[in-house]
Amino acid sequence: MTIIECVPNVSEGRRTEVVQALVEAMSRSPGVGLLDASSDPSHNRSVFTLVGAARALKAALLTLYALAIERIDLRTHRGAHPRIGAVDVVPFVPLQDATFEDCITLARELGHSVAERFGLPVYLYEAAALRPDRSSLDEIRRGQFEGLHTKLAQPGWEPDFGPNVPHPSAGATVIGARRLLIAYNVNLDTDQFDVARQIAAAVRASGGGLRHVKAMGVDLVHRRLVQVSMNLTDYEETTLDTVFDAVKREAERRGVAIVDSEIVGMVPARALIEAGVRYLQLEGFRLEQVLERRLSSTLTLPRRPSS
Amino acid sequence: MTIIECVPNVSEGRRTEVVQALVEAMSRSPGVGLLDASSDPSHNRSVFTLVGAARALKAALLTLYALAIERIDLRTHRGAHPRIGAVDVVPFVPLQDATFEDCITLARELGHSVAERFGLPVYLYEAAALRPDRSSLDEIRRGQFEGLHTKLAQPGWEPDFGPNVPHPSAGATVIGARRLLIAYNVNLDTDQFDVARQIAAAVRASGGGLRHVKAMGVDLVHRRLVQVSMNLTDYEETTLDTVFDAVKREAERRGVAIVDSEIVGMVPARALIEAGVRYLQLEGFRLEQVLERRLSSTLTLPRRPSS
Repeated sequence: MTIIECVPNVSEGRRTEVVQALVEAMSRSPGVGLLDASSDPSHNRSVFTLVGAARALKAALLTLYALAIERIDLRTHRGAHPRIGAVDVVPFVPLQDATFEDCITLARELGHSVAERFGLPVYLYEAAALRPDRSSLDEIRRGQFEGLHTKLAQPGWEPDFGPNVPHPSAGATVIGARRLLIAYNVNLDTDQFDVARQIAAAVRASGGGLRHVKAMGVDLVHRRLVQVSMNLTDYEETTLDTVFDAVKREAERRGVAIVDSEIVGMVPARALIEAGVRYLQLEGFRLEQVLERRLSSTLTLPRRPSS
Repeated sequence: MTIIECVPNVSEGRRTEVVQALVEAMSRSPGVGLLDASSDPSHNRSVFTLVGAARALKAALLTLYALAIERIDLRTHRGAHPRIGAVDVVPFVPLQDATFEDCITLARELGHSVAERFGLPVYLYEAAALRPDRSSLDEIRRGQFEGLHTKLAQPGWEPDFGPNVPHPSAGATVIGARRLLIAYNVNLDTDQFDVARQIAAAVRASGGGLRHVKAMGVDLVHRRLVQVSMNLTDYEETTLDTVFDAVKREAERRGVAIVDSEIVGMVPARALIEAGVRYLQLEGFRLEQVLERRLSSTLTLPRRPSS
């Protein structure tokens, strides 16, 4: 079965009755699983994790747009997180048997429908972008809801679908496709924030470090520790154990030990299995030896009807 | 879905046409997946790995018994591995959502049917044993096919199902339930066989070592290495990384390095994930964070029909 993940970010993290209405609508959506729902009041934003096949996801998302547009008004919305619309960003992520192409197609189909049905300007971003200068979400969101009227009127910022003017209360929306992201933090045995900042700068792609790592230093004042807080944007190319090793090496150079590490949210089995293979110094190991992978592929093959 | 694994051991590893006939029969069996088939000519024995729900497995096994009894004659069978019957041993192993009880029930049901349909004496072993002195397969198999007539006539060795005399060509059969077993070997950077032998003796349960580990030393002459060859009989209680650490510690005490390790055959994802968690020094990690586990539990929940 082809499964896609979708992580819609909605501009409401304070009014629990609104968040609850969105959660309920998605939980009832046929063929879709709601894996997680997290709201942040200071960001005034909620993030949902949905999984399902393309068609079921598209239906669930159209319901989400309808509800969010009805209940959220960006003209009175305040929060710490940048946002451009009521349904701010909708990334699709390929999971089990799904390809990047499946997600790009779905993003563009949804964008087309959302523009038509709700009169929303739609920008396509990252892998689903139709122009190279729209791969960056930050660029698209610059100016936020408040600057949207001006932005949409600028040459080069015409939306990919929908009108050249913002929806009065719901703004615009950004839809795209990206790889699965792992949120991974390593905690260091020091209260020197500068150590975390330096290590983050050394391991991340923008500092010439590992290609698929974004990183920043964080001061965990309550634990009297500092943290290297990371996003792994392609865990198949830059593996978890490579990232751990890199942070550990940089910490050792500074005479600092690692206390522990943490994965925030979901992680694909493969990312941890590869770290396990590393720990055990396994040679010649093939992922096909993992029982669950064989079970799912063997038992879903078409068979003769049961006699 | 409740899935059980079954690993029938059949006393034929030389005549490929017979093995092929067994493989084809099982591959065609509805609702059952054949994950692996391995034949060893010197043992003159084949081991199959089947998965499926209880009812489908039982039907596949009855087909296997019928074919094996028809094509295999123990009176002319020679091989290095001890055996008592044409279908020698049939262990059931609980996998996804299945319990140990499910496997015990299935073992007893199959034993009953096999005795009735084929006139075979059936011993139940390990977790499915009806008497405590039948938990050990080695004890049941002692005397082999050639000693079966005498054994079955002895007080205390009446079969659990079927007649008190062996089947003339197919002998008897042993059916049971056990936990999933991981075959795990660690290779040492020395050609001193004695080192492997000593380490095996130190880490295994029978030597006062780790509770769920069977181990022996093996001389890998062609690689000029020695190996600690192990079976992990309960990887949830004695984890892979614990076993690796124990072998490594014992090797270090003897000034010997580890070259690499290997998993032979299948391994549950969880065993490697736990080693990965160890490598990364993850704190507070929950198996529910593994995406695939959430996918399978979320998307198989009953839902309203797709609209």
